[in-house]
Amino acid sequence: MPELRNRSWILQKRPEGLVTLADIELREEPLRPLQAGEVLIRNHYLSIDPAIRDWMSERPSYLPSIPLGEVVRSTSLGEVIDSRHPAFKAGDLAVGVNGWEDYSIARGEQLMPVQPMPGEAEQYFLSIYGAVGLTAYFGFLEKGRPQPGETVLVSAAGGAVGSLVGQIARLKGCRAVGLAGSEEKCRWIVDELGFDAAINYRTSANLEEAIREACPEGVDVYFDNVGGEVLDATLMNLNKNARIVFCGAISGYNSQQPVPGPYNFWQILARTVTLEGFLVSDYFERFPEAIAQVRQWLAEGKITFREQVVDGLEHCLDTFNLLFEGANTGKLIVRLAPTAEAGVRGNSLSHATEASVSAAVLEETR
Amino acid sequence: MPELRNRSWILQKRPEGLVTLADIELREEPLRPLQAGEVLIRNHYLSIDPAIRDWMSERPSYLPSIPLGEVVRSTSLGEVIDSRHPAFKAGDLAVGVNGWEDYSIARGEQLMPVQPMPGEAEQYFLSIYGAVGLTAYFGFLEKGRPQPGETVLVSAAGGAVGSLVGQIARLKGCRAVGLAGSEEKCRWIVDELGFDAAINYRTSANLEEAIREACPEGVDVYFDNVGGEVLDATLMNLNKNARIVFCGAISGYNSQQPVPGPYNFWQILARTVTLEGFLVSDYFERFPEAIAQVRQWLAEGKITFREQVVDGLEHCLDTFNLLFEGANTGKLIVRLAPTAEAGVRGNSLSHATEASVSAAVLEETR
Repeated sequence: MPELRNRSWILQKRPEGLVTLADIELREEPLRPLQAGEVLIRNHYLSIDPAIRDWMSERPSYLPSIPLGEVVRSTSLGEVIDSRHPAFKAGDLAVGVNGWEDYSIARGEQLMPVQPMPGEAEQYFLSIYGAVGLTAYFGFLEKGRPQPGETVLVSAAGGAVGSLVGQIARLKGCRAVGLAGSEEKCRWIVDELGFDAAINYRTSANLEEAIREACPEGVDVYFDNVGGEVLDATLMNLNKNARIVFCGAISGYNSQQPVPGPYNFWQILARTVTLEGFLVSDYFERFPEAIAQVRQWLAEGKITFREQVVDGLEHCLDTFNLLFEGANTGKLIVRLAPTAEAGVRGNSLSHATEASVSAAVLEETR
Repeated sequence: MPELRNRSWILQKRPEGLVTLADIELREEPLRPLQAGEVLIRNHYLSIDPAIRDWMSERPSYLPSIPLGEVVRSTSLGEVIDSRHPAFKAGDLAVGVNGWEDYSIARGEQLMPVQPMPGEAEQYFLSIYGAVGLTAYFGFLEKGRPQPGETVLVSAAGGAVGSLVGQIARLKGCRAVGLAGSEEKCRWIVDELGFDAAINYRTSANLEEAIREACPEGVDVYFDNVGGEVLDATLMNLNKNARIVFCGAISGYNSQQPVPGPYNFWQILARTVTLEGFLVSDYFERFPEAIAQVRQWLAEGKITFREQVVDGLEHCLDTFNLLFEGANTGKLIVRLAPTAEAGVRGNSLSHATEASVSAAVLEETR
């Protein structure tokens, strides 16, 4: 194999606030040789997730901070082009926690082989069959413990995870109410996804009151991706014995000040609420079960999802920052340019167009 | 029955900070006649609890705020002296949510009849067999879900609830570590109650580090009565899948500013923690089971508890404020003076002396 050169986004310093080109830079270097047990992957798709902002900070979290001088960590899907691990051979597709780069070298045991079925795009394994879909599935069902007839409130309901949570809530016989940041998102989740109601949190004069109106019987399950003021307003609307699935807190990720817990924290006691932190990786053993169920719902037309695929490694940063403006309209994925050696690749590109790709962003980035 | 006059502590205005005589006043009025279904109780003992401070505020909570102009709400134990409810007759002892007053009129169905066994003081039903003991029992066992070998950290461990939680933790095969506010309390919980370690949170230069040293294997269950900085320091020491029993947050009860949740709130997600609000009243149906178990542990000498009994209705306020100075050394109870009609009363007084009464406070208040 000829020497390959790899472009990687390298974390240069800990960001303060929004990540800029002063914090990360795109660097090109030759790839080192594989060691025993390692696999070389050419990345086809990179997952652009809010959690990456957390990993860039020094705050202790569920994964170590990304070390300065190393590649920005991200889940990727790629094609094996060389392997020194018995479970993988050239041409296989695999998902792993790799980075924003053309090629990744990973230990074989840390990769998950994936096999799209006919008609399924490769990148589904970074969205509906990946962390997004599985987070909605396990987070809502295992931590939310919904009962038919209950009211489920979802923050970031126009986002990748939240839009699925509301649909699964409906499938489980719950009333689903979504909080979203634009009229377009509110219309989408109600008209196309079947949410019972939507609240535009940006234009609500009194969010606590708006939630009360949309959830007249109170909230039994709150699926939270946002934290901050939205969580505070929700706490005042929870029913006794409500469950909060603490899945994310994007409102604070770019803060340069320490972000406290909610001011209405006392309501957790007063209403005997259960608040549970959720990490999808804890359910690794059960991923196949969830993928099978989600695949069935998709086939039956019971759930809808949106991807927003942006072409080009050089667009990782601007794509990432869409998340913090609430400007994305689905699961954000960066697609890397196919190259001559990428035999399997042609297939996946044709599949990719089946996902609903945001034309505007593609326009801008092509 | 001759007309009885009743002295009651009346809430005059919402306190700001520590409660003072500007907020509540002792007023004397004639008792109104009983209505059908009501019971008249002469209170023997009043329970002095941190929760009362919460009920005085306007913050929405699990019970309505005490209305201005009404008696300060408190659990009391007393003797029935008149009854228009079929379940009660004169001479019965009953516990109920009544108030800081000589006599209380209550609906019969809201009273719990109690029957001390030989050698048991009446006021045990306001402490070890009352909310204190039952909170420790159900809160720790049901919400903490301890496993043998786990590390249990308890705040306000020198207090009435916390001191019991640590002892139950030891009975369940856990390592028990207590946070307390004085060297005397720290010695007491280790030397007399059998806690494995104690931390004086007032003299610790770095509380997070002190917890790490006392809990080298991390914290699996945190039983919290305090909130605030102690909760923040604990969050940085929790193990994955730890449980927090949110039983109280006394550090903020007198605050005149809104008190936010913990600054390390993110750790609940990062360590996939379960935080549960706890109210003992939710376990009402199971009180007999718990009282039987606690009674057995007491009889076997497996648990120890302290009461601090202060004489005189006029001392409700100063006794209450001991809680916020951390100056109490056991469950605080106010004992009302026996009167000529109180036939049953002589008995209970002799029992009361069996509890460990704080000589210093009695001295001061007699």
